[in-house]
Amino acid sequence: MELTMLGTAAGRPAEGRNVTASALAMPPQRGTFWLFDCGEGTQHQLLRAGLKLCKLERIFVTHLHGDHVFGLPGLLGSRSSMGCETPLTLHGPRGIRHWLETTFTVTGAHVHYELEIREIDGDGGVVHEDDQFTVTAAPLNHRIACYGYRIEERPRPGKLDAAKLAELGVPQGPLYAQLKRGEDATLPDGRVIRAADVVGPPIPGRIIAILGDTTPCDAAVRLAEGADLVVHEATFEAALADKAAEYGHSTTAEAARTARDARAARLLLTHFSGRYRDEDLPRLEAEAREVFPSSAAARDFLTVQLPHKRRT
Amino acid sequence: MELTMLGTAAGRPAEGRNVTASALAMPPQRGTFWLFDCGEGTQHQLLRAGLKLCKLERIFVTHLHGDHVFGLPGLLGSRSSMGCETPLTLHGPRGIRHWLETTFTVTGAHVHYELEIREIDGDGGVVHEDDQFTVTAAPLNHRIACYGYRIEERPRPGKLDAAKLAELGVPQGPLYAQLKRGEDATLPDGRVIRAADVVGPPIPGRIIAILGDTTPCDAAVRLAEGADLVVHEATFEAALADKAAEYGHSTTAEAARTARDARAARLLLTHFSGRYRDEDLPRLEAEAREVFPSSAAARDFLTVQLPHKRRT
Ligand SMILES: [Zn+2]
Ligand SMILES: [Zn+2]
Repeated sequence: MELTMLGTAAGRPAEGRNVTASALAMPPQRGTFWLFDCGEGTQHQLLRAGLKLCKLERIFVTHLHGDHVFGLPGLLGSRSSMGCETPLTLHGPRGIRHWLETTFTVTGAHVHYELEIREIDGDGGVVHEDDQFTVTAAPLNHRIACYGYRIEERPRPGKLDAAKLAELGVPQGPLYAQLKRGEDATLPDGRVIRAADVVGPPIPGRIIAILGDTTPCDAAVRLAEGADLVVHEATFEAALADKAAEYGHSTTAEAARTARDARAARLLLTHFSGRYRDEDLPRLEAEAREVFPSSAAARDFLTVQLPHKRRT
Repeated sequence: MELTMLGTAAGRPAEGRNVTASALAMPPQRGTFWLFDCGEGTQHQLLRAGLKLCKLERIFVTHLHGDHVFGLPGLLGSRSSMGCETPLTLHGPRGIRHWLETTFTVTGAHVHYELEIREIDGDGGVVHEDDQFTVTAAPLNHRIACYGYRIEERPRPGKLDAAKLAELGVPQGPLYAQLKRGEDATLPDGRVIRAADVVGPPIPGRIIAILGDTTPCDAAVRLAEGADLVVHEATFEAALADKAAEYGHSTTAEAARTARDARAARLLLTHFSGRYRDEDLPRLEAEAREVFPSSAAARDFLTVQLPHKRRT
């Protein structure tokens, strides 16, 4: 899995930075990706990043400010006109359906694939669950309803101890699978092999928290708890905490405190105000690192690898 | 005056081509520009072209298909968030107000400058008039209501014949201005100087026709009549006339016939289907030139100069 930042600017596009979107590549066997937010020009960024719209499986929208959604109508339309037939599910705050339906009606657009729109309301909760992942949404604190997302991969079964299995004379085949699932197995000769004796501890799943625009809040910390990666807005530098609070945003230091309090492994800062240019990023990054050393400032097209955790 | 093509692709962005928009720079003393259509990413293209949103005076939308309007909400919002205070008028087919108002409401957007939305309905007609220009809209023939625009500059008074005025003993000053306006003038000594004797013929204004998506039709020819420049879609190559007709579009050769029948000076082809790449453009251009020699295929960021006509 890897996360590619498609837009890292707040409010409006700047030179070399587009408005918010990021693409989370699912595990390779799945071959798909999920999109988080979809500012204007996101379909252009996907084109540049070489990510195919037909492989887009799911979109999660944090909130309905234009810099997070104005790329949706074009992206949804292009995904149809280029002939994609795979279904797509869109998760987002209440109001998104009305806006998209009005947009489609007024502009005479149709999508020819199955598009499911699932609105999120109130306290959020589990918004998606499949055999590999659970996604939880929780309300943050912004000027309008805004959700953060926690993506949790299910733990995977531990590794079979092949040497031990050979020593015990367990024949390869269905019994191996049974043991790997954690079930004890009875051999043809009547001996019972306990899964716990031949299977290593489960491999914990990866956790990624992708938060929307917000002031520092408990919900952000809870969503980011123990995450391998937290993507957090840092619209302003540490000295502008008042301004950040006034507009419902966070500073670099505030984002870092959330990551620290959540005992996350890494923090990726994004959604920088237009006042900051590329040459300001090292300074913003340094502000966060003072609080939380594993901080980095995102740039458009930065890709962060999310390797499996080692066995604990 | 000059016209800069900001997007020349049909339907969805392609490599190196954005969806439709073009910017018409007004005469230098005005310092503003007009925008024709506003596909997704137009504000990004303006940024790249160095055109300032605060200088945008007027937007004309041909029709409500997404590839011509999905850049509007972001552009209108950015124009406000960057602090522009100059008013802006948006002309477009009926439905555009409802869509923009819904979009602003759902996304909590506000614009802090004066935004006037003027809907065009039925047969169109004169949609804008000022001391320099008249803009006429007329319905074309597309899958939904679509208008073409004819921008006509008013003729400017002819040049004063300075030698003749000196010979006649006309004193410089208010009498010169009066004669230049075409009014006869009475000298202090009682002689009457006829404007027609000392002022050259009026300098005709420039005419630009920017048409929307359409099959070949009489309205297109009328809008383009005698134009210095016609911007016409050429979604398909000449051999695909059936396909063009089926989707409400034109071929290269059809666009060229319209320019020829309108006795226009120059034709700029745009809105190319995604099936065509840069290397196909010379071929498309050649198809048009067979019918109308002064044809050219547009590329993104191509700027066409529109010099004053010579005196006729
Ligand atoms: Zn934002
Ligand atoms: Zn079009």
